[in-house]
Amino acid sequence: MSQPQEVLAALRTALGDDQIRVGDAVPVRNRADSAGLPPCAPAALLLPRSTAEVSAALAICHRFSLPVVVQGGLTGLAGGAHPVEGEIALSLERMNGIEELDPVGRTMTALAGTPLEAIQQRAAEAGLLYGVDLGARGSCTIGGNVATNAGGVQVLRYGMTRRNVLGLEAVLPDGRIVSSLVKVIKNNAGYDWTQLLIGSEGTLGVVTRVLLALQPAVPSHHTALCSVAGVAEALQVLDRLEAKLPGGLLAFEAMWRDYLAATAAHAALPPPFTSGPALTLLVEAALPAGEAYADLFLEALSALVEEGLLEDVLVAQSSRERARFWTYREASSEFYRHLPTGLHFDISVPLAAMAQGADLLHARIAQASPGASLIMFGHLADSNLHLSIHPPEGTGFDGLAEVVYRTVRDVEGSISAEHGVGVLKRPYLGYSRSDSELALMRTLKDALDPAGILNRGRILA
Amino acid sequence: MSQPQEVLAALRTALGDDQIRVGDAVPVRNRADSAGLPPCAPAALLLPRSTAEVSAALAICHRFSLPVVVQGGLTGLAGGAHPVEGEIALSLERMNGIEELDPVGRTMTALAGTPLEAIQQRAAEAGLLYGVDLGARGSCTIGGNVATNAGGVQVLRYGMTRRNVLGLEAVLPDGRIVSSLVKVIKNNAGYDWTQLLIGSEGTLGVVTRVLLALQPAVPSHHTALCSVAGVAEALQVLDRLEAKLPGGLLAFEAMWRDYLAATAAHAALPPPFTSGPALTLLVEAALPAGEAYADLFLEALSALVEEGLLEDVLVAQSSRERARFWTYREASSEFYRHLPTGLHFDISVPLAAMAQGADLLHARIAQASPGASLIMFGHLADSNLHLSIHPPEGTGFDGLAEVVYRTVRDVEGSISAEHGVGVLKRPYLGYSRSDSELALMRTLKDALDPAGILNRGRILA
Repeated sequence: MSQPQEVLAALRTALGDDQIRVGDAVPVRNRADSAGLPPCAPAALLLPRSTAEVSAALAICHRFSLPVVVQGGLTGLAGGAHPVEGEIALSLERMNGIEELDPVGRTMTALAGTPLEAIQQRAAEAGLLYGVDLGARGSCTIGGNVATNAGGVQVLRYGMTRRNVLGLEAVLPDGRIVSSLVKVIKNNAGYDWTQLLIGSEGTLGVVTRVLLALQPAVPSHHTALCSVAGVAEALQVLDRLEAKLPGGLLAFEAMWRDYLAATAAHAALPPPFTSGPALTLLVEAALPAGEAYADLFLEALSALVEEGLLEDVLVAQSSRERARFWTYREASSEFYRHLPTGLHFDISVPLAAMAQGADLLHARIAQASPGASLIMFGHLADSNLHLSIHPPEGTGFDGLAEVVYRTVRDVEGSISAEHGVGVLKRPYLGYSRSDSELALMRTLKDALDPAGILNRGRILA
Repeated sequence: MSQPQEVLAALRTALGDDQIRVGDAVPVRNRADSAGLPPCAPAALLLPRSTAEVSAALAICHRFSLPVVVQGGLTGLAGGAHPVEGEIALSLERMNGIEELDPVGRTMTALAGTPLEAIQQRAAEAGLLYGVDLGARGSCTIGGNVATNAGGVQVLRYGMTRRNVLGLEAVLPDGRIVSSLVKVIKNNAGYDWTQLLIGSEGTLGVVTRVLLALQPAVPSHHTALCSVAGVAEALQVLDRLEAKLPGGLLAFEAMWRDYLAATAAHAALPPPFTSGPALTLLVEAALPAGEAYADLFLEALSALVEEGLLEDVLVAQSSRERARFWTYREASSEFYRHLPTGLHFDISVPLAAMAQGADLLHARIAQASPGASLIMFGHLADSNLHLSIHPPEGTGFDGLAEVVYRTVRDVEGSISAEHGVGVLKRPYLGYSRSDSELALMRTLKDALDPAGILNRGRILA
């Protein structure tokens, strides 16, 4: 089999020796993403330094019909960047850097391999803000964020990554470079092809450069933990707060009882409310600077307590307390390590079906895996639930995914709110997409990647 | 030529006699859109009552390779819905109706032929708001809004139509129905094909049903007219106001001096500022109810006057005064009738190049068409300028489009901010899109519409 040798030779010529790793020289980190699959060394690792090198590499792989897996920060949970036997891994890690910040148009231009946190920091230095924030901010890259349409904890206010992208430069599977980096809010000059690439998990093109919209910085944060009797009450609270603080809510996160039991047991965080409420909400608002507005936040919450919609409220009195409140929400990565291995889900449920959906999930999982702990939390205002099922030691996961995704189908939700499909959720895509939608996705894939080389087997079989 | 007869017979069988008009029975209104092109009777007008009928009609036209032009409210300004000789017109006017409003998930499901205003009113009745508003609200349809990714006067706060659409049902050019009407904010389960259809001007599929996101109603509007010395100052004002009223601005519209001269001369509206400032801004904010917020708005504006950034300010003291302020901005349709025939543009210019771009346009148009009046106004915060050039009677438009679009290219803007390309701007698409982008658009068109029947010649040749 001389073909791989021939390909490698062509790649070496195009990129230079130092941009290619093979065999043992492929670092361990490039052999897996964060989905928990067994590591697999790619046939080679490419480390292009420029869009031109990405283009040259893809043109060669396309010519030889050699499959390519694209890698960013490798924080994905769906196996999208996890190498499959025989694939060439193309990592954007050397394309790291912020090229420009335009303070007038409030835009930032960055290379795809730039970590999200670097983007956030650079925006903050200019008195601005980038609207997407998530736990993996230190390692995930902006290119990966775009490829997966990353969500996070501020979607309520700023939307998902899609809404924060003004333009892209990308390399198509055959090596062609396409670029739309026009620094305007409104551009109806023909198809917005960037929208198709956003969220396509690297299967239609490799994002190499992004043009981001920035926002004014938030003058002051107001943060509270609230206890409520259930989902229906929480949704009424959301409604009232949005009416009183129009456009002001940043986050509206929900943690179910078992979630906070786990933070207490395994993350050294005593529960915020000793009553052990069914739901604990983390509410955060951005309001104009000034005391009147702090009062407004307090008044809005107090009114809800008086009305009986909120059982109890704790308002952060300092930025330190604010940070402490957030540790509850961000503790999940810590307590997972202490629990039996879990199966994780990231689903969307329509708000009108959220109470019923949460009940159904609890009942069906209890039946399918007696004794399992079900950790439920999520971005409630965004209709997004995260679920971790930890069956008792010694029992397996058989049928659990089926139970969860069947429930998603029953309530007409989505099998992936923000993590994407990758390879892990591919078998279940039909639970939230029709055959005609899948056929349309296949048509688009075949049109842009006729040789089927790019992130093959991700999303579509 | 018996083929048309055969097609018509097939269409009659599929849709029923009453859903087809031919010859003189085609109403005058369906022979033109609002682009000002000479009317042209389509070969037939189809009036389907359901998605199934749209599907049947397209399947037949696809089989016979017969071109189809899609019609909504016919308010488009780019010729996208204007029939071309031999085309079948497919009007969505009978698919008019709101099917559901979900107050918990804040969504509305409506048929494509529903007028925008009906959507706005139904949302208001439920204490909610649909985020897109534009002058043609009474006649334009939601399907047309989606097809053209309509913008309007509240993009600053709510984004363009794209941001307000949660899902679509559409019929592809070969008659296949695709549907994604999942009532969730976050859905990363595979390609978001709806994003590709939004803004594709009916060239990739016919939108038949929409799922819209609704917003909480605005508790109170605060509106002001402000005079400023120029674009640079206006952009500083925008910056300051966004910092003081985070998330609060709804509109930030700019009217140049000649615009207000025209409203004074031809729309019986005396100028708001006798000083005749270079720029007059219409600023509107949505703030929480209560006196403290009215004060906040006043204080923010007063501070800008003291600082010298604003020359003068008029704050609306009643909803009637607010409506009067808006008549300045909405007067353009009236004064166009009194001026010599004009050539209209809808361009985007990066904010950082806005001052330079406006100057360049004034200078180059004065040179190309001495004595022409140049009416300039627009959604300044959205980087969107509307331009009308009215050369003196007896002189033509030769070369003026070239002058404008060349300037757009020089400042790296977009030839269409919100009106779309249609047929009128097709020759200039290359001024804001590269060859590789045009090739990618062509690939997508060919993949979804291999017979090339749907809105042929719109956007792409």
